[in-house]
Amino acid sequence: MNVNLRGRTEHFRTVAFDAAKNSVLLIEQRLLPHEFKIVGTKNFRETAVAITDMVVRGAGAIGATAAYGLAQGAHAFRGRDLKKFSAHVETVYQTLANARPTAVDPVNAMNEVRRKMLAGKTVAERQFLALAAAEEFANEEARHCAEIGQHGAKLIRNGMRILTHCNAGWLAFVDIGSATAPLYAAQAQGKKFHVFCDETRPRSQGATLTAWELAQQKISHQIIADNAAGHLMQRGEIDLVIVGSDRTLGRTGEVANKIGTYTKAVLAARHKIPFYVAIPLSTIDWNLKRGFDIPIEDRHESEVLGAWGVIDNSKSKIKNLKSGQRAYVRVANPTSGARNPGFDVTPAELITGIITPAGIFQPKELWQQRRKLGHTD
Amino acid sequence: MNVNLRGRTEHFRTVAFDAAKNSVLLIEQRLLPHEFKIVGTKNFRETAVAITDMVVRGAGAIGATAAYGLAQGAHAFRGRDLKKFSAHVETVYQTLANARPTAVDPVNAMNEVRRKMLAGKTVAERQFLALAAAEEFANEEARHCAEIGQHGAKLIRNGMRILTHCNAGWLAFVDIGSATAPLYAAQAQGKKFHVFCDETRPRSQGATLTAWELAQQKISHQIIADNAAGHLMQRGEIDLVIVGSDRTLGRTGEVANKIGTYTKAVLAARHKIPFYVAIPLSTIDWNLKRGFDIPIEDRHESEVLGAWGVIDNSKSKIKNLKSGQRAYVRVANPTSGARNPGFDVTPAELITGIITPAGIFQPKELWQQRRKLGHTD
Repeated sequence: MNVNLRGRTEHFRTVAFDAAKNSVLLIEQRLLPHEFKIVGTKNFRETAVAITDMVVRGAGAIGATAAYGLAQGAHAFRGRDLKKFSAHVETVYQTLANARPTAVDPVNAMNEVRRKMLAGKTVAERQFLALAAAEEFANEEARHCAEIGQHGAKLIRNGMRILTHCNAGWLAFVDIGSATAPLYAAQAQGKKFHVFCDETRPRSQGATLTAWELAQQKISHQIIADNAAGHLMQRGEIDLVIVGSDRTLGRTGEVANKIGTYTKAVLAARHKIPFYVAIPLSTIDWNLKRGFDIPIEDRHESEVLGAWGVIDNSKSKIKNLKSGQRAYVRVANPTSGARNPGFDVTPAELITGIITPAGIFQPKELWQQRRKLGHTD
Repeated sequence: MNVNLRGRTEHFRTVAFDAAKNSVLLIEQRLLPHEFKIVGTKNFRETAVAITDMVVRGAGAIGATAAYGLAQGAHAFRGRDLKKFSAHVETVYQTLANARPTAVDPVNAMNEVRRKMLAGKTVAERQFLALAAAEEFANEEARHCAEIGQHGAKLIRNGMRILTHCNAGWLAFVDIGSATAPLYAAQAQGKKFHVFCDETRPRSQGATLTAWELAQQKISHQIIADNAAGHLMQRGEIDLVIVGSDRTLGRTGEVANKIGTYTKAVLAARHKIPFYVAIPLSTIDWNLKRGFDIPIEDRHESEVLGAWGVIDNSKSKIKNLKSGQRAYVRVANPTSGARNPGFDVTPAELITGIITPAGIFQPKELWQQRRKLGHTD
């Protein structure tokens, strides 16, 4: 998507590849929203570290990063021995797969790259095919997000006030995003609307990443505390909710997503506000039979007990300190602990529709429409 | 309540009076939870500034502070001229009333002090009666909170997991608090239970003040992000919700309280978890006919866009900086704004009961029981 850099507007993808330098190009997301910087990894090991250290995050984005990382690793091989090459590729694969061991997207993406490169008969051919497959994966992901946008934009009318939670934006994918895709498509169609970004404590991805994205695209928006959406709904100030998903059960239509999503779905149902979930097909889990069995990660309590930001010293008034230093402040009582579940599960009955690249479906229709949605068995 | 000071346990009230020094003693709440300090105001003007600058906050606490401040101002008068004395008292009254112009508690408290001191025939008598009336006001408030505790403790059973929102603790009153009173009373009865403190963004009073209070009393507790309560309820991990109120409508049973309260009430109703509101009688508004007409303060967006805390430099790694400095960090995207409603209104249908010093009532019973609840017409 477009980024405004000192008056200029430039197009970037979250993940891209520089073939001349054999380098994966990533937006350094840990610096956002306070600094925009592209970093290039020198080799596949650096690419794996970038995934581990969350230079890049978001299911779609780390999938593409791993795909490019596999091509990058393959390309670095010197020699013609196909057996040694295969052993090398296996090392690359394992290194990247272990970068975020619980994520499935990197593995799925790399399996596709590995499968396609096998059509090559020489090392050089396989190296070429690996990069082509990685590019194809990234392009297809961006295209899927664009399709989500086209379907989802139909839900957006002029003057609407739309709530979103966390960041399922282009920064979490190669481009365009899932929950944000309908917003970008509607804007391209000339529609005017306003977005409320849930702050999304404890990691504040709504206040940092989604707000940054919308500001870049000049979409009217405001950040709200996670506590405020209920009040705004009660006063008739929210017309539509669109969120993303980390895992959607194909058999039940249940949606696992960032903690707090379930709460927004409950509130939306009470106020009869349409609640949509936007997902790429890779998010659908066709196996699990009930949402209760989705493992909910308990994250570190320091996320809840404090916050990261940049020091505003006009308020803080610390001697000999300039504003703009990145810092973690402990907010909570120092002798208290926290409980920090990272995700929650929203039942199908609270979801108006699921926006996919193949169209909008009711949650219970996913299983019935499974062929169209990429299920193979 | 008790505070642990380097191993010693001492009892404090949020607001007290040092007659020898003619000084109002306040817990400096802006330093909590990171530092515990008692400050004494030198004169009524300093007392007014302490209210304005939120050294002391919470409806009950600022009511008592204003009552003591009026006595303090009266006491400082030199001379025997009753007319000049009355003019002086009027100045003191206006100064304190203007310290937080939208609050009603300071005015109500001072009206009582002013009325009672008129029984005195000399300046000295009135000065004496003013202090006696202020002390009586503070004692009565603490007694009311203790009564809330006795009624509310009946709701708490061994092993319960209780959710609370914001701080309606002893720091918001003279002592004991409203929503916390049942917790303290149940603990005194030997009951064991666990409290989840909603962080309560944007000002985080749950993570800072309520968690600090519970830690002092050694009550088992954890802080959670405001987003997490829905998930915990869904998993059956919350048995009871108790919150406070800034204004409760005597005619309808609607409750205005800190933003996010309504959301918790909606979630509790969905999960059939009892949802109680603890209030002193001074919180009841007998006039307003519908909750929609309660003015909802829109607060400054900087509260939502960042956070106050103390810098943890083991994480932040800023050169030449010690940990422990108080700082405001900007969390959100720097080019985004925020919407920041400070309160919301919970309808009677979502409230299981209202815990008052006179007993527990259903919200719709308040009007019927108005004589018992201090309504005079």
